[in-house]
Amino acid sequence: MLLNGLRVVTERMPHSHTFSVGFFAGVGSADETEKINGSSHFLEHVLFKGTRRRNPEEISAAIESVGGELNAYTTKEHTCFYARVLAENSDLAVDVLSDMITSSVIRTTDVQAERAVILDEIAMHGDDPVESVQEMVSDHLLPHPGLGLPVIGTEESINALSRQQIVRHWRRSYHPGSIVVAAAGQVDHDHLVEQLAAIGDFGDPAARRRVRAGGFGEAGPQVIADRRPFEQSTVSLAYRGPGIFEAERFPIGLLSVILGGGMSSRLFVEVRERRGLAYGIEAGETSYTDHGLWSVDWQSAPDKVEEILELVRHELAGIAEDGVTEEELVRAKGQMRGQTVLSYEGPQSRMSRLGTAELIGDTRTVLQLLDEYDRITSDDIGKVAADLLSRPPVLALVGPRRPSRRLEKLIN
Amino acid sequence: MLLNGLRVVTERMPHSHTFSVGFFAGVGSADETEKINGSSHFLEHVLFKGTRRRNPEEISAAIESVGGELNAYTTKEHTCFYARVLAENSDLAVDVLSDMITSSVIRTTDVQAERAVILDEIAMHGDDPVESVQEMVSDHLLPHPGLGLPVIGTEESINALSRQQIVRHWRRSYHPGSIVVAAAGQVDHDHLVEQLAAIGDFGDPAARRRVRAGGFGEAGPQVIADRRPFEQSTVSLAYRGPGIFEAERFPIGLLSVILGGGMSSRLFVEVRERRGLAYGIEAGETSYTDHGLWSVDWQSAPDKVEEILELVRHELAGIAEDGVTEEELVRAKGQMRGQTVLSYEGPQSRMSRLGTAELIGDTRTVLQLLDEYDRITSDDIGKVAADLLSRPPVLALVGPRRPSRRLEKLIN
Repeated sequence: MLLNGLRVVTERMPHSHTFSVGFFAGVGSADETEKINGSSHFLEHVLFKGTRRRNPEEISAAIESVGGELNAYTTKEHTCFYARVLAENSDLAVDVLSDMITSSVIRTTDVQAERAVILDEIAMHGDDPVESVQEMVSDHLLPHPGLGLPVIGTEESINALSRQQIVRHWRRSYHPGSIVVAAAGQVDHDHLVEQLAAIGDFGDPAARRRVRAGGFGEAGPQVIADRRPFEQSTVSLAYRGPGIFEAERFPIGLLSVILGGGMSSRLFVEVRERRGLAYGIEAGETSYTDHGLWSVDWQSAPDKVEEILELVRHELAGIAEDGVTEEELVRAKGQMRGQTVLSYEGPQSRMSRLGTAELIGDTRTVLQLLDEYDRITSDDIGKVAADLLSRPPVLALVGPRRPSRRLEKLIN
Repeated sequence: MLLNGLRVVTERMPHSHTFSVGFFAGVGSADETEKINGSSHFLEHVLFKGTRRRNPEEISAAIESVGGELNAYTTKEHTCFYARVLAENSDLAVDVLSDMITSSVIRTTDVQAERAVILDEIAMHGDDPVESVQEMVSDHLLPHPGLGLPVIGTEESINALSRQQIVRHWRRSYHPGSIVVAAAGQVDHDHLVEQLAAIGDFGDPAARRRVRAGGFGEAGPQVIADRRPFEQSTVSLAYRGPGIFEAERFPIGLLSVILGGGMSSRLFVEVRERRGLAYGIEAGETSYTDHGLWSVDWQSAPDKVEEILELVRHELAGIAEDGVTEEELVRAKGQMRGQTVLSYEGPQSRMSRLGTAELIGDTRTVLQLLDEYDRITSDDIGKVAADLLSRPPVLALVGPRRPSRRLEKLIN
């Protein structure tokens, strides 16, 4: 940690020729109220619109002219600005990113132009059935205000946000104490720290506050359908799941692998290989700091939805009753370990893991997490499957048909 | 090249812990007639359905249980089966892939199950406005039969394909002379060659034939619209472009970068940064062995399409008239070089480049190609812009509105 409170985490990969760096701010839509919903994402957009030293073209040209990548994303819990460049351009990347984060000018005209762009983005998300279904699930299973709000905001909130509100959100959410800088690849930690120390203080931490106090919505099982003239139905069967620090994430992670974590998973084999009912089907958890979701997701012909849902509930009930086989357990642990190692091959994924873990104070290494998975038994997985089944599910659907009675029955 | 005619290309990356391998067969939808359209992709699906030694679950479980990735894709000109594993599992990956390609059983029941899956996939593509627009462009600007046919086939051709036709397509398209094996990462070339030599002969090259004799469609400028109830319009302004071996690809590649190759490109700055008319806009070429396409693509509110199209034509005409600035040229060459180097950081992208280049007999190295780009002048780019403008464009649209008269006028 630097004198000003900024945290810096790095991993040097001696044989790498590239440098990946991310500035992670601990703010996202979970920190917003309905009224300012979408302000973290809106802010991310306007921080590209020019600083005291660079106009917007100069920001992107600085990185793009050396072939680098400069981008940003906003999630429910954090906002990340990142760059990936050849090692020789590392100073430039750090300079451009810190300039954007600390010294943007945020002009009213830029706020207006980006407002139009974000309204287009909302329309694009609305046109996408997969994003629509995910939003329906989050809205129903996560707390409001807080995690249940959409990252991008709503047409109403985006139209109402003023430049002043966005600037205030920036000043109180971006200060040395809220930011983690993570870098991986050909990185010199001491040099990076020196460069960052020169930034000095910024933002207004005194004004900072967190929301995250929202409550959960209705309790019973629910079918939520959005009828739209697509050929296929997009479906998510979702339950509340564990947060990042909850022990339940380990058995639930293996349950996901065994049930729907690849082409050898139970549901893929049943639904795709044996019956040709859908192109694919997946199970998986989405974990946030304090809460999470677990879901099974697929796209299929509208008249196949009931049959697939029956198979999903049947397999889940089977595991709740009998656990999983020894062979499945060994295979799932091997898959978890191998996939994790493979996924951290490049500097960019390591940078991302370093930054997000530091941001939420998760001090466990990847290998420690893998060891936790290794301790899980078939019984643990059976218990977590039974526990999931005891929670009220949400079945979210986007597609051409009205949900049938049979469908309503199946989830009750 | 092995005694049986199989070509093997590898790149050893001494510090890598992983192994990426791909089996590239030189067959895709460009080799099909309308009648058997989709058979290359259908074949790719059924080669996952079991061999003499492994049932389908065993195929995927073999790779997934060690955390590896096993997948395949079909393009217009080739089909690739690939795996990515930890170095210690390299023999296994090669064994599974060669087993699938040479010794699949292709049962009638599997053909039936996959037919249903592919019909779902066709429906999914149809629901996606971006894929729909690309298909409309290919259909109108590329030859029929040949490159103009969709990779996935049509509902009609997929319903009509018999097991026998698929098996025949396999026997004549998959033989040692048609396949390239490429590997990168922690790879031992001699060991791989030894393992592959043991496969022996397979397939029936005598039955092989290539189609690719199709003609081009109508000549004039065209607006092709598919009216669908989306909120946003998805648009592609497309022209015929160069094939992989044509010299025109070098000036056209730099034109793409300068016009729409990132956040500092002319169109992004005009359309997104200055006017907030769309979330993004891109220009780029798609090159096949003998032909290609060049297009500008975006999604926007339906009432912004004309204004954006005017800006696109205006910028293109401006470059045709005046060329590009020295600063733009230098920046674009730097961007091309840096992006290329960064994109080949990992073993998987190198494997993929090795395999596809060998397949079509492209012996130029990436650095040689970059040198070609470096030789391009502002005049060359102006000429290629003027040349594009002299070709009849296709404007493909998917969205809620009927194309306006003004739009028709703008492309004529």
